[in-house]
Amino acid sequence: MIRVRVVGAGGFGGANIIELLAAHPRTEIVSLVDVNGVGKPISSAHTHLKGFCDMPVESPDAAKWDGGIDVVFCATPDGVGMTLAQKCIKAGAKLIDYSGDFRFNTKEAYASYATRIGRDLKHAAPQLLARAVYGVAELHRDAIAGASIVGNPGCFAVSALLGLAPAIKNHLIDPDTVICDAKTGVSGAGIKPSAAFHYPLRYENMNAYKIAAHQHTIEVERELSLLAGKELRVTLTTQIVPLTRGIMTIVYGRLAKSATTADQLYDAYAEFYRGATFVRVEPTGVPVSNNDVRGSNMAVISTNVDPRTGQMIVVSHIDNLMKGQAGSALQNMNIMFGLDEATGLRRPAYYP
Amino acid sequence: MIRVRVVGAGGFGGANIIELLAAHPRTEIVSLVDVNGVGKPISSAHTHLKGFCDMPVESPDAAKWDGGIDVVFCATPDGVGMTLAQKCIKAGAKLIDYSGDFRFNTKEAYASYATRIGRDLKHAAPQLLARAVYGVAELHRDAIAGASIVGNPGCFAVSALLGLAPAIKNHLIDPDTVICDAKTGVSGAGIKPSAAFHYPLRYENMNAYKIAAHQHTIEVERELSLLAGKELRVTLTTQIVPLTRGIMTIVYGRLAKSATTADQLYDAYAEFYRGATFVRVEPTGVPVSNNDVRGSNMAVISTNVDPRTGQMIVVSHIDNLMKGQAGSALQNMNIMFGLDEATGLRRPAYYP
Amino acid sequence: MIRVRVVGAGGFGGANIIELLAAHPRTEIVSLVDVNGVGKPISSAHTHLKGFCDMPVESPDAAKWDGGIDVVFCATPDGVGMTLAQKCIKAGAKLIDYSGDFRFNTKEAYASYATRIGRDLKHAAPQLLARAVYGVAELHRDAIAGASIVGNPGCFAVSALLGLAPAIKNHLIDPDTVICDAKTGVSGAGIKPSAAFHYPLRYENMNAYKIAAHQHTIEVERELSLLAGKELRVTLTTQIVPLTRGIMTIVYGRLAKSATTADQLYDAYAEFYRGATFVRVEPTGVPVSNNDVRGSNMAVISTNVDPRTGQMIVVSHIDNLMKGQAGSALQNMNIMFGLDEATGLRRPAYYP
Amino acid sequence: MIRVRVVGAGGFGGANIIELLAAHPRTEIVSLVDVNGVGKPISSAHTHLKGFCDMPVESPDAAKWDGGIDVVFCATPDGVGMTLAQKCIKAGAKLIDYSGDFRFNTKEAYASYATRIGRDLKHAAPQLLARAVYGVAELHRDAIAGASIVGNPGCFAVSALLGLAPAIKNHLIDPDTVICDAKTGVSGAGIKPSAAFHYPLRYENMNAYKIAAHQHTIEVERELSLLAGKELRVTLTTQIVPLTRGIMTIVYGRLAKSATTADQLYDAYAEFYRGATFVRVEPTGVPVSNNDVRGSNMAVISTNVDPRTGQMIVVSHIDNLMKGQAGSALQNMNIMFGLDEATGLRRPAYYP
Repeated sequence: MIRVRVVGAGGFGGANIIELLAAHPRTEIVSLVDVNGVGKPISSAHTHLKGFCDMPVESPDAAKWDGGIDVVFCATPDGVGMTLAQKCIKAGAKLIDYSGDFRFNTKEAYASYATRIGRDLKHAAPQLLARAVYGVAELHRDAIAGASIVGNPGCFAVSALLGLAPAIKNHLIDPDTVICDAKTGVSGAGIKPSAAFHYPLRYENMNAYKIAAHQHTIEVERELSLLAGKELRVTLTTQIVPLTRGIMTIVYGRLAKSATTADQLYDAYAEFYRGATFVRVEPTGVPVSNNDVRGSNMAVISTNVDPRTGQMIVVSHIDNLMKGQAGSALQNMNIMFGLDEATGLRRPAYYP
Repeated sequence: MIRVRVVGAGGFGGANIIELLAAHPRTEIVSLVDVNGVGKPISSAHTHLKGFCDMPVESPDAAKWDGGIDVVFCATPDGVGMTLAQKCIKAGAKLIDYSGDFRFNTKEAYASYATRIGRDLKHAAPQLLARAVYGVAELHRDAIAGASIVGNPGCFAVSALLGLAPAIKNHLIDPDTVICDAKTGVSGAGIKPSAAFHYPLRYENMNAYKIAAHQHTIEVERELSLLAGKELRVTLTTQIVPLTRGIMTIVYGRLAKSATTADQLYDAYAEFYRGATFVRVEPTGVPVSNNDVRGSNMAVISTNVDPRTGQMIVVSHIDNLMKGQAGSALQNMNIMFGLDEATGLRRPAYYP
Repeated sequence: MIRVRVVGAGGFGGANIIELLAAHPRTEIVSLVDVNGVGKPISSAHTHLKGFCDMPVESPDAAKWDGGIDVVFCATPDGVGMTLAQKCIKAGAKLIDYSGDFRFNTKEAYASYATRIGRDLKHAAPQLLARAVYGVAELHRDAIAGASIVGNPGCFAVSALLGLAPAIKNHLIDPDTVICDAKTGVSGAGIKPSAAFHYPLRYENMNAYKIAAHQHTIEVERELSLLAGKELRVTLTTQIVPLTRGIMTIVYGRLAKSATTADQLYDAYAEFYRGATFVRVEPTGVPVSNNDVRGSNMAVISTNVDPRTGQMIVVSHIDNLMKGQAGSALQNMNIMFGLDEATGLRRPAYYP
Repeated sequence: MIRVRVVGAGGFGGANIIELLAAHPRTEIVSLVDVNGVGKPISSAHTHLKGFCDMPVESPDAAKWDGGIDVVFCATPDGVGMTLAQKCIKAGAKLIDYSGDFRFNTKEAYASYATRIGRDLKHAAPQLLARAVYGVAELHRDAIAGASIVGNPGCFAVSALLGLAPAIKNHLIDPDTVICDAKTGVSGAGIKPSAAFHYPLRYENMNAYKIAAHQHTIEVERELSLLAGKELRVTLTTQIVPLTRGIMTIVYGRLAKSATTADQLYDAYAEFYRGATFVRVEPTGVPVSNNDVRGSNMAVISTNVDPRTGQMIVVSHIDNLMKGQAGSALQNMNIMFGLDEATGLRRPAYYP
């Protein structure tokens, strides 16, 4: 059994990975860490886990870093994983970090990201950056398999990248015209209450935020630039709509050849994702929606063109808490430990 | 493997049992029947099942009733199960029917129910009524184990009965003072669109309906009368609130002894449900909510008294589509086939 | 013009009364007070008011209590109104207080209430209690007309009282059997974010709270006792359902004469509310719902009996922020100033 | 008083204009027409109107076209207004039509539109097309003032046009790079129930539809082309998110001069809408949301640029049933009859 620690057990990202791990045939949760609820069963915070996981929460100070752990999920905000990483690696455990702490491989790249989120530009464990692998399995499966540290991707980044990668890789669109219009459910903002997510102010509401400034833009640009073989920039507009789970990103790009048909686009996407368990590509005209992904690890992608304007219009659906977070994290763990990447992740979307 | 047919595959009740069966280690779906979508994969109607169950739908006329089926779930409205039951039994299959067709054991009792829902008072298979068992496992586990026909209970009835049974059985309340105030999510009304459940008219809406007239009242009264050892009547008020999955029924009854404490009440409930996998009883002061049951087969019950008024106040939460329908149906199947009753049903509630 | 101050302008109750006052033909807002947002226009907190009311917010300390104000709305939590009341009255202004501070006329009655909400049992202005009038216009219109201090009623209390008053007054039910099962939308909990009302934890959720302990019970009992001519107690179960505006309270009572028909009940209610602008009584069988009251000052009441069990079942719908709060407050102001009580309050419910 | 007939009184668009007219100081509703609910008060269909408008519904056949009507609102789907227009004009009444019937001035332009929605390409009253005026007051106020027929704009078109007009008119963006990413609430689909808007299938759901094919594209292109002084085409992607009222359209265009600042953009928009009662422009950094417009006739527009990519990003919020439909219709009526265009339309957004 793979022995697992979850740091940040008390958030949504913690709850979701605990739920997945509790049902996983090859993992054993051995430690749950959080600053809140210390000493109480995790199921007193996440009551839906009663009877499924009632392990008490440890404080970060009390958590021992010895040889008894094989993998650590840092389901924590930016800045936590980087402080634990050295201890973790030294104790022989692999690390999967949800935040931006290990999505970049150089101090400079990290600093550029840190600027966007208003954090200290100095990384706490710069010596480990080079070994971190960016955890989008559909792009970096082999590197993940050999990694000891995985930087789990941002939720918007997953949805945008899965929607754009085949087009950029195959030079189907002009890489300087990419627009990502992304709508997320509210759970992406985490478990901490705030005015913006207070029920009476959020039901029936929607808004764009961090316009031209969202930090996930950087990882999207880095990955697409790798695929394009040239530096590119994207416009990403993040929005919040009144639902809990789900991201729908519509990605636009001017077709490199205006005669490219929807069928050709579909073929390129289907080919790119051949063998990808968790990506389903649908041709124009097949309805797709958040109902296809809510609660599941699937990404569902609809490929379209507007021949009148020469635009590619790709709709990319994921569940921000699954493929956008805990699901991808577990998929990465499976790959890191040589398991079938779908182990413990095969479940259909919530319905209705 | 237990070979299963689902009749009424295209509804919510069909979708849910298919999803559960597809993940069940001991069942094999061999036939899906519906009047809609014939010839197409069930996943074209329930797209969340793509990759999980893509079996084509058979028409009722085409479905063969030979020896190849071990159990049939009739996830159908009133009046369908009774027309299939004889063929089903003759073909050697057990029957689990979601409707009221087999919740009663005499023609007269059925007629009383049929009156309430405006149906023909004559049952189509009266000779089978005597062998039908009422499918609330917590009340009739042994009889279900030996049954060939199970009448799956009404969703409101499950929630009311689980909330009342220990109090009535132990004579803790005056059986002539029972009030059940029941709120359901919208999925209880099924998959068929109607004005009352049109999104713009249902969001931010709530209402009572079938006041003093809901058909589930009859099965609640029958079961409680059996437990009380005397005929009793209950007031049941059914209401719809703007959520999709969940029933919260608050049951009231005047305490037989006004000095009964909340602790005593809790003890009686805890004792009654000792060993019941899918019922969790919580004492006064422990918060319970729909979040504890949504998507799961659990019933969660909070036991309270108002010492000022001498009232018992028990809050009973279930997911109407799980413990209130498909979950109970599968639990019954497990019992009928000698399996652990929780097989394929152990999953926590949806969260968040 | 009636010159108005609103204390607690930054909450939902403040926002609603400001909105109503801004459209009222006979009022002029002259002062908005709050501890937050001081110096900024109120519309920077409540952005929907931009262009309708952009008056800057004053701090409580800065607000002058001289002769320039005719009426003060304290849209504040318990404990604020009582500290301002003396200054207010001395300055010649009338006071309408949203909290429980002036719902009771004796120190003892207030202390009993204060116990329930965990506040200091000592009232800060006990000398003013005797002159306070309880602000349910349908019960105390004449007294309100002559009052200088009105204690605006609790939202649950309004819905329960309007649903019960005619039955109790006319001795149609046994006053010792009253149960109020009350469901509220989330706005009743105010504008302050908390875990219980964080969107991801509240959508698809419902729960009972303060079982057998809600403080509004006391004012319901006091008013019904006055109507009954004897002391009575009620069981009140408060619940939260996932919508923003609305309360649906179902009130139960054993019919004094079990032969009482729904028609007789309806007639008694219709007679009781003859001339009441903001109460509409509907007979059994006419659908009523939260859609009839959301955003409006109407109370809509459906009268029913269950002849099988001898229970009265009355469904009482209000908008908790209108008839349950700001709407009643303005209705009271109209009465206190000799205006038609509906002035500025005639608007239909939000739809859809 | 302006005597008004509403055709299509039973839909959401009918309900909204009736509500507005009932509160309008200068209008009198004299006739309500619908195919459903004939002979019954309109308030039996729209129960929130009880006491506000209880006029009985006339059948289309019974409705007389004589001199007693000054203006007709056709709150009807495509194809109805064109069959009534001649009778209406002949009877001396002005016509405001909600559908696409009178948004175009030539048979050819209409045919192009009709193709998109699968209707007969032949217009039923081609002789009237030339006199129809497109009803976006902010673009055509003077022409509307003199019009006898106004084609009320499509809801998506209003939101896109208000977001784009100043940029196109002032040549701030390359007119060949316009993308409109539009999200609507569910009420835009009307009152008729369907699977896509069945509560259990729509809550927590979102999806794009009619990709590269929405009929409102045509009127957006026509109007922008007029402003640009050249033919242009736009990409419009329409999406449905789980709320009832509101459209948020994000419009993108490549800045003509990449050095254009957000301030310059804001100034151009503020200038363009100087004097427009129902458009509020907000600079970058001022939060705007659907809460600013829900239930009101306001359009709220946030002006932004992404200097890294040279994109303009403008967020345009309206309520689809108000500025996107009934509100614009009434604004147009006010203009047509020489009234202040805001008469009967000054009300803040619903909150909370």
